[in-house]
Amino acid sequence: MTAAAQTQTDAANRKLDLGPAAELVSKEEGHRQPLAPEFVCLEDFSPLEVTYDFGRVRREDIEAGPNSIWRYKNLLPVPSDVEQHPNTDPGCTRLIRADALAEALGVKRIWVKDDTGNPTHSFKDRVVAVALAAAREFGFKVLACPSTGNLANAVGAAAARAGWDSVVLVPSSLERAKVLMTAVYDGSLLSVDGNYDDVNRLATELAGEHEDWAFVNVNVRPYYSEGSKTLAFEVAEQLGWRLPEQVVVPIASGSQLTKVDKGFRELGEVGLVEPTPYRLFGAQASGCSPVANAYKGEQDVVQPVRPDTIARSLAIGAPADGPYVLDTVRRTNGAVEDVSDEEVIEGIRLLARTEGIFAETAGGVTVATAKKLIEAGQIDPDSETVLMITGDGLKTMDSLQEHIGPKATVEPNTEAVDRALNG
Amino acid sequence: MTAAAQTQTDAANRKLDLGPAAELVSKEEGHRQPLAPEFVCLEDFSPLEVTYDFGRVRREDIEAGPNSIWRYKNLLPVPSDVEQHPNTDPGCTRLIRADALAEALGVKRIWVKDDTGNPTHSFKDRVVAVALAAAREFGFKVLACPSTGNLANAVGAAAARAGWDSVVLVPSSLERAKVLMTAVYDGSLLSVDGNYDDVNRLATELAGEHEDWAFVNVNVRPYYSEGSKTLAFEVAEQLGWRLPEQVVVPIASGSQLTKVDKGFRELGEVGLVEPTPYRLFGAQASGCSPVANAYKGEQDVVQPVRPDTIARSLAIGAPADGPYVLDTVRRTNGAVEDVSDEEVIEGIRLLARTEGIFAETAGGVTVATAKKLIEAGQIDPDSETVLMITGDGLKTMDSLQEHIGPKATVEPNTEAVDRALNG
Repeated sequence: MTAAAQTQTDAANRKLDLGPAAELVSKEEGHRQPLAPEFVCLEDFSPLEVTYDFGRVRREDIEAGPNSIWRYKNLLPVPSDVEQHPNTDPGCTRLIRADALAEALGVKRIWVKDDTGNPTHSFKDRVVAVALAAAREFGFKVLACPSTGNLANAVGAAAARAGWDSVVLVPSSLERAKVLMTAVYDGSLLSVDGNYDDVNRLATELAGEHEDWAFVNVNVRPYYSEGSKTLAFEVAEQLGWRLPEQVVVPIASGSQLTKVDKGFRELGEVGLVEPTPYRLFGAQASGCSPVANAYKGEQDVVQPVRPDTIARSLAIGAPADGPYVLDTVRRTNGAVEDVSDEEVIEGIRLLARTEGIFAETAGGVTVATAKKLIEAGQIDPDSETVLMITGDGLKTMDSLQEHIGPKATVEPNTEAVDRALNG
Repeated sequence: MTAAAQTQTDAANRKLDLGPAAELVSKEEGHRQPLAPEFVCLEDFSPLEVTYDFGRVRREDIEAGPNSIWRYKNLLPVPSDVEQHPNTDPGCTRLIRADALAEALGVKRIWVKDDTGNPTHSFKDRVVAVALAAAREFGFKVLACPSTGNLANAVGAAAARAGWDSVVLVPSSLERAKVLMTAVYDGSLLSVDGNYDDVNRLATELAGEHEDWAFVNVNVRPYYSEGSKTLAFEVAEQLGWRLPEQVVVPIASGSQLTKVDKGFRELGEVGLVEPTPYRLFGAQASGCSPVANAYKGEQDVVQPVRPDTIARSLAIGAPADGPYVLDTVRRTNGAVEDVSDEEVIEGIRLLARTEGIFAETAGGVTVATAKKLIEAGQIDPDSETVLMITGDGLKTMDSLQEHIGPKATVEPNTEAVDRALNG
């Protein structure tokens, strides 16, 4: 029996426990099928998404849960005993009231959701933890991914913690920090001659050939992507169980923005919050802004681009969820905007200077886009805005190196110090 | 009026609120004096330490508190409204049951306290947050420090968040990541021609000349160092309100180990835990092991050394709290051991491979020392052991670069991937 067949047999032989998850449904025509490690509907060729039969979900039960995303397990496609298995247990990162940043941008209130506090310092720990939990339930034994870096770190760490093998494919141009932070976990890290879109295509081919590999963002993508909902859940809980008014989310594949939306809607549906209106804004780097282009061009189709930006974790030229981002942003009365690499650097520095948070280039994109949307009057300065800071500055230092450094190098005496500070 | 005199007048004019903190007491002869920004007793020249009048401290109140070290504010020298002021709000980091690491080391149970999840990814956020809170109460306006790097990051971030100026002094040999992660917060970062002990001496001189500067680890050190107790508080709470049996702590100045001990003792005194026995073990790199040398030589005096190790965050050749570490380790039936730089690298890789946690070189020292103490029979394999992982691998990547990397670089096709994995 092949490993793929074994995986399927294992799954069939016991009752699948993915918590409240009920079925997969295609995003275009709503075709339904049983839960399985599949990601495209064979009838309409659109992406599959998880649907649920939520039971009663109460604030008290969530608040009494673990200090990680597993407190929301009754809203995720994960086994009921998910917290009993080795995983990275991410989440419950800080939501910071950023008064100094708000003042610098001339708005009433900004909140920063600081996902640099996750185990490998990006929001990818959330999606990978959910993917690992679902993949374990489906009987997979190898965790794999194509990645622009943060995902590679998260997959490497989660596989190590679970005792699984990992296969991680990254573009050869990747930042040194992200390469080393993947290699250290001792899985199979392969550097691929090509850009992220090449690596992504390669992963899809490999997923077809190695059905015992769980490619977190390919064959188990419907489960993986649900992990981003936990950003929405945490923001709402941290605000005292209510939805925020405006949210700025960086766009790579576009999945995160659509899942933040799904998370907010589900919270309203199960009665955990009032279903108050919110506006979702998408942030891209001008060097890779296919969704912003479509939004501004008032188009429904996202034309692929060839990425050229320092925001490499957002450098996906053909974003899979681009059209759904356009739908979501238009439905919630938001917008998509893009900013130059210079603005990205200034965004990183502004956030660090005002709030003491060191974000990666994607975070610079989010801050700079918020600034641009505020200046253009698209973000309402009298409403609150949440910024999703999804990755860590330590991973993208190469882009900052020529812009910052010590104020001076001095001899070890007090006169030299005073001269340097006052000179 | 000088700024220094102004600071003192401000403090005298209102009632000082440092929560349960009562007095300062000298560590050698027990001389008592009022709470003030002072760090050495002028009668016996020994370090000053904070004493408390603890009121009733209940588990329920702590558990209902914020998800940060401020849940323990009634055990710290901080104002009663500490959580109302902008600070980095560190703590509540993961305590991970490390079964795979325990199996690799042949012991029953290991817990990893993973302080890489703090805002600037090291335990220094804890001590700096407490120092900032106390310094604000004393009327200071500038946050300063000499640093081997992690402290620089923490001071830069905390000052930015609080809207304070900062003056940070680092040795010019510092790792690039730590330099950039300090400079980004836009305080006054000065690179000093000298090693850490030179920089430390310079800071003590500057603290005398600029009395309006709160040097976190010099003139407000008695408050600062209490922040390390929160590691002990969290471990005990995360274990279900009990003390662990054995703990391995890295030694730089030695403060952390003595404060973990103080934290455990205070928890017993106020009745939050049973005062069960525990053993504390100190970990050093052989290239800077003055405390291990004294321990193994059965001496009470710690002879300074000239540091030469990749574990730069532990490279303090004249550790201020060295003698107190010796006392504590001997009293608790622990030990101090040191490991080579090669063992440090292997320690980093072992922790990453087994548990998916990427520690800095200091973490490698802790893991490798635990391994050595287990192999020597000094750590009991049938009792549990907690490892304090106090800093992040992303900051010390230079030391790993020649040891790890991708398994292979491949063309973007499946045959190339299969060849690389199976070849």
